[in-house]
Amino acid sequence: MAFFLNAEAAVLSALGAVGFTPSRHSGRCRQRSGPTRHRAHAETPAGRVELRWPWGQGPCSGDTGSVAQAGRQQPDSSLKDAWDKSSSASRMALLETGKHSHGLVPGSVNPDLASERQTASFSVEKLTAQLDGGVEQTWIRRAVVEAIESDPVFSRENQYFQSQNERYEAAVRKAVHLQKKMHEMGWTENGPEFKYIYRALSGDVAFLLHRIFMRSISVLGSDKQIAKWIPLATQYQLIGSYAQTELGHGTYLQGLETTAVFDITTQEFILNTPKISAMKWWPGDMGRSATHTVVFAQLYVQGKCYGVHPFIVQIRSLRDHSLCPGITAGDIGPKMNFEHIDNGYLMMQNVRVPRENMLNKFCEVQPDGTYVRRGSQKINYFTMTTVRISLISDEVLTPLMKACTIAIRYSAVRRQSKLKPGEEEAKILDYQTQQEKLLPQLAAAYAFHFINDYLQELFDRGYREIQRKNFDTLPELHAFSSGFKAMVTQHCTSGVEICLRACGGHGYSLLSGLPSLYTKILASCIYEGENTILLLQTARFLIKCFMAASAGQPVPPSVTYLAAVKPGKCPAKNKLDFLRPDIYTEAYQHMAVRLISSTAAKLQDLIQSGVKKHDAWNQCTVQLAQAAKAHCHYITVKNFAETVEKLETKAGIQKIMKHLCDLFALHGIFSNSGVFLHDGYISGAQMDMVTASYLDLLAVIRKDAVPLVDAFDFTDKSLNSALGSYDGQVYHRLYEWAQKSPTNKQMSPAYEKYLKPLLHNTPSKL
Amino acid sequence: MAFFLNAEAAVLSALGAVGFTPSRHSGRCRQRSGPTRHRAHAETPAGRVELRWPWGQGPCSGDTGSVAQAGRQQPDSSLKDAWDKSSSASRMALLETGKHSHGLVPGSVNPDLASERQTASFSVEKLTAQLDGGVEQTWIRRAVVEAIESDPVFSRENQYFQSQNERYEAAVRKAVHLQKKMHEMGWTENGPEFKYIYRALSGDVAFLLHRIFMRSISVLGSDKQIAKWIPLATQYQLIGSYAQTELGHGTYLQGLETTAVFDITTQEFILNTPKISAMKWWPGDMGRSATHTVVFAQLYVQGKCYGVHPFIVQIRSLRDHSLCPGITAGDIGPKMNFEHIDNGYLMMQNVRVPRENMLNKFCEVQPDGTYVRRGSQKINYFTMTTVRISLISDEVLTPLMKACTIAIRYSAVRRQSKLKPGEEEAKILDYQTQQEKLLPQLAAAYAFHFINDYLQELFDRGYREIQRKNFDTLPELHAFSSGFKAMVTQHCTSGVEICLRACGGHGYSLLSGLPSLYTKILASCIYEGENTILLLQTARFLIKCFMAASAGQPVPPSVTYLAAVKPGKCPAKNKLDFLRPDIYTEAYQHMAVRLISSTAAKLQDLIQSGVKKHDAWNQCTVQLAQAAKAHCHYITVKNFAETVEKLETKAGIQKIMKHLCDLFALHGIFSNSGVFLHDGYISGAQMDMVTASYLDLLAVIRKDAVPLVDAFDFTDKSLNSALGSYDGQVYHRLYEWAQKSPTNKQMSPAYEKYLKPLLHNTPSKL
Repeated sequence: MAFFLNAEAAVLSALGAVGFTPSRHSGRCRQRSGPTRHRAHAETPAGRVELRWPWGQGPCSGDTGSVAQAGRQQPDSSLKDAWDKSSSASRMALLETGKHSHGLVPGSVNPDLASERQTASFSVEKLTAQLDGGVEQTWIRRAVVEAIESDPVFSRENQYFQSQNERYEAAVRKAVHLQKKMHEMGWTENGPEFKYIYRALSGDVAFLLHRIFMRSISVLGSDKQIAKWIPLATQYQLIGSYAQTELGHGTYLQGLETTAVFDITTQEFILNTPKISAMKWWPGDMGRSATHTVVFAQLYVQGKCYGVHPFIVQIRSLRDHSLCPGITAGDIGPKMNFEHIDNGYLMMQNVRVPRENMLNKFCEVQPDGTYVRRGSQKINYFTMTTVRISLISDEVLTPLMKACTIAIRYSAVRRQSKLKPGEEEAKILDYQTQQEKLLPQLAAAYAFHFINDYLQELFDRGYREIQRKNFDTLPELHAFSSGFKAMVTQHCTSGVEICLRACGGHGYSLLSGLPSLYTKILASCIYEGENTILLLQTARFLIKCFMAASAGQPVPPSVTYLAAVKPGKCPAKNKLDFLRPDIYTEAYQHMAVRLISSTAAKLQDLIQSGVKKHDAWNQCTVQLAQAAKAHCHYITVKNFAETVEKLETKAGIQKIMKHLCDLFALHGIFSNSGVFLHDGYISGAQMDMVTASYLDLLAVIRKDAVPLVDAFDFTDKSLNSALGSYDGQVYHRLYEWAQKSPTNKQMSPAYEKYLKPLLHNTPSKL
Repeated sequence: MAFFLNAEAAVLSALGAVGFTPSRHSGRCRQRSGPTRHRAHAETPAGRVELRWPWGQGPCSGDTGSVAQAGRQQPDSSLKDAWDKSSSASRMALLETGKHSHGLVPGSVNPDLASERQTASFSVEKLTAQLDGGVEQTWIRRAVVEAIESDPVFSRENQYFQSQNERYEAAVRKAVHLQKKMHEMGWTENGPEFKYIYRALSGDVAFLLHRIFMRSISVLGSDKQIAKWIPLATQYQLIGSYAQTELGHGTYLQGLETTAVFDITTQEFILNTPKISAMKWWPGDMGRSATHTVVFAQLYVQGKCYGVHPFIVQIRSLRDHSLCPGITAGDIGPKMNFEHIDNGYLMMQNVRVPRENMLNKFCEVQPDGTYVRRGSQKINYFTMTTVRISLISDEVLTPLMKACTIAIRYSAVRRQSKLKPGEEEAKILDYQTQQEKLLPQLAAAYAFHFINDYLQELFDRGYREIQRKNFDTLPELHAFSSGFKAMVTQHCTSGVEICLRACGGHGYSLLSGLPSLYTKILASCIYEGENTILLLQTARFLIKCFMAASAGQPVPPSVTYLAAVKPGKCPAKNKLDFLRPDIYTEAYQHMAVRLISSTAAKLQDLIQSGVKKHDAWNQCTVQLAQAAKAHCHYITVKNFAETVEKLETKAGIQKIMKHLCDLFALHGIFSNSGVFLHDGYISGAQMDMVTASYLDLLAVIRKDAVPLVDAFDFTDKSLNSALGSYDGQVYHRLYEWAQKSPTNKQMSPAYEKYLKPLLHNTPSKL
């Protein structure tokens, strides 16, 4: 049910945890005070990189009307070259007529896309800066992206044609080269550029688990262990992994079956994989790369089991990379994505490690076999919960934003059927059904960007409290990280799928970039805690708070609304009322309270009627998960509305964000109408008003749809999509890229082996 | 927005449309009489092409308790062999202890799965026969499956490790070998085995478009053309394809841009691809295999355009397979699935074909340039609509049934966390949330199996009418085929995704079989008409019928319910009432009528307020699509209830089918509660009863979950899943299969190139 992929997910742990400091999100979106920004800027050692640069890409066209001014938006000239090199027959045929042309001339921006940019109601460049948390951040990010993308070692050009073996090799090559690159560019792990590197690489890099290896030693190891292992890892004298998940065991850590038995005579731990379900399975970097790993195993001392503990185990020779004695390890084979990661398996038979290899910051086995527990692990639990939040940005939001960019640009270029008789075929973005697929996903991308800022701030505050040894906020933070990880990954995964399907057949081609975005984001619903389990953890917190609030006890700030249960009805009188944030936020709140309170009531009824507590809980889990989602949905809407209110009114940004906020909220009511109608809080007639306002909004936002995705500021190389490039030259690019496919590089052996004998079987009559 | 994949989809065309004769679905489930089968058979005018067709489908395994009797379900002995051959270290380690064992002993059925089968409430073998349409059909199907699967040429063993090139080669090899196999087995295209071949091959076979090529000639060609081309194609003296879709043009056929200009002086057509968007793109078998294709192009005679017509064009030499003069063609590159198919592109520059190569059953250009149209094309339109129905079984239902089989068997074996304190970890199938994910998909698989039977019967009747030159049913049939294709593909695609995600991390491994089922079924939402467009076609029919019914005019039988609009309220008094088919069927009917009538009203209001008709239509499309779905959902529920009523009462089948019918219906109400609550037809209190009954049913059906998927009767080879095999030896199989991965076959060059220099960069301190 729940397993860790232990791959990128966990990277994020690394990147996330490392970056999880107040400075990381200062100045984001809410326009924190200038000093904060300048400080951040002063920290920037970025004088070494070019701050302004040619930018063959996506985004953020500057002020309206000056899109191409810096030459940044010029389409890739290689396109035209490729076209010129195509067979003369085809070239001649294709260039000979411009009749019915939709302007698909190589070397220029498709007029169907260019026209979309001329009517933007806001400054795209300013919105980009807003999303980045200030224009300086935008510069730094672009500089990092440029440095990475201009380096051929990091090219993703042939990614869609590569086998699992080839992708692994490329990921290792990039990881090794990245060390060099960082040194060359003067980027450090504490520098301002660091957080943009992963986005710039678009994830295809190895050694992410090496970082988790390091982090786990830093967090769980003693000072002595840190002093020994961290320098070795930093200098890559070893390659680390992190072996927790087993073939038969995921989320439920107590269930792990790997054993580590203390041998008092030799002062060693003897590690074993007692049966097949105990085999470590999934850890990234372990299948082919790692020399060492942190193994989680049940600790036995003198016959007594002390539960799961972490041990550093060497698995491959540092001399020739052969497997160490007692070790069986390899790659777990092909996956839906993450082909570049060597997720691995590991079996151990009587593998001995010295006593010092158990990470012993929190507990230790002394030489005489005495087991000692010490200090508080609470800060460590906190670090774990932050991982779920830290993955949202790069692993979940970025794919949705990319998918929206690709699908919306394509929908402004693709023409299909006639909307009005006698006119030319219409852009598919002009169809209400297409808008209704894509624009709510766009609104969600913004909503989740803002909730991500909110969560960063919340965890930032929590971190400061915890550093002061105040652990009161831990349960709330845990509930937040679980619930939002589940809600956001679920929503964004489904959003990417909608974008893929909305692009029809061409979306199904790998060259569109959409299939790989989908197959990758899908994993986020599973790793770092399977979503259903996470929602139920949030639900447990909510039920507890609801009970406390009902009893008049104090509850954490985010759930005080549970105490204020008002029956009431929605006061909206007409469809315009549903564009009032107070009206819809109140509706979400009411709905969340109702779902939580009614489920709490069902739970109590069951228990009072004699059902055992755990059975009663299980019988309510479908509704509990629904209630947890409702809570997160409410907080997201509320936060979006509050963010809009605080935005600057200039540059048209507040206005368009208000539209998106309305759309996000009304789409949620429209598509979950039952939970709002259930107790009559919203009436059928009011639901018709919601629908009317919702559909009206689609037409309004459609006008700014392309500028809104341009503001995400993805380069063409980063999108890696034949459908989504800035210039909208969709068909030329599909054709050019298809040429590079291995299927076009040579005659298939199938011809000589099968087709020729078949066709020449009987004397031809043709 | 809408494109044809022209691949398997179209196969299905072939398989489907050709096979669309009464004989195809005779005897299914409803146990039709033999004579019907024979008569229908004789009526078919399609003797030139395959008469019967694959129509493979649901499966099944022996009587409860005697499942393994025929040796068919014995676990693969190679498993044990592999285990024996594994390194002695690992083997010893793994066999040394049986402690906490879940019985994962190679060579036997996992006790966790075996126990599920001992308590079946019905005869699995009888249910299988019911699904097959009689026990004789089951025998024939199993014989075909056995013959195919025992032949090593058809093996899919390494499929998950193969590149696009390798899969193409394998598909060609299988297609060529299939000819031989059929001859050897005495299977003919008119024989009873034929319809099971495609299912037995699990789709990985080439030359499916060759069949479409033949069908299009049979349907659109004159007797003379048929006499010339069909024998050539039958003997594989050429390999055909079907080139309709263009890079810039999908569903909207009038928009095609390829031109065919008649040259009166040479009596030839000159074909051209005037610009890049006119390039043919997607046709299967065209990228690397085909020598000929049927090209759809705008016909020009003496400067006048006569619209789209079909032309036979040779594209590759029959001697050496090189491209013919004026032809540019190749493979369109990697896709999300269908790697075995060489979907291709095609450009033509001044390609000349003789006048006789225009398929001219319905229209002809005479030597003097006179354009003549003749006969009725209506029968042809009918053939087109049948394609959408014919693909449901093999391409949509089979994947959902397989996904349910894999996910449910795995959920009975996988244990995770404790449901009750002190007990061992629970089967994940015992969690309500897991049941709520999987069991509605299982119910849907049965619901769609039965609606498929219903649609077959409907089209069968329609076909007989049409042969009597009565075309009255055409609009209704068209609406049915569009709406049900959209609803069923949508529902089943989402069902497969749910199954995949419900298997957590292991579901994400290609070795689970689930990713490829998902990526393949996803395409069914796009090909043969994009779903949104199809739903709107159904909606147009419904609105028209609603208007007619309101005006007292007669309407087709399937929509007479639209005339009987009753306001009323749902009469259910308690949760048991919601297990009454009359109660929930009535609710679905009410809901469908309400959505159709309210959208019709909105449409009229808009038009009356001065909005132009096409604009008004576009502004209602989101709601129109919803109304069309509601109609299909209603018909599906109603049909399921009626089917259950007619089932034999013996063998416990009717009882379990009744539970599934209830679950399907209540799941639909539970998850679309808004549309039932909207006008108060169902009250909030009644919705709570629905929820209660729905959740109760999960626990009831859970007991028979494994027998219910066993009844689909998929062999292990057909599932090709490490998680879903009959013996439930999940972990052994994952481990065994991973060994075969190319990533474990050799040391990666990445070690010598990158890892070694990195690790040896500085003198080791370890």
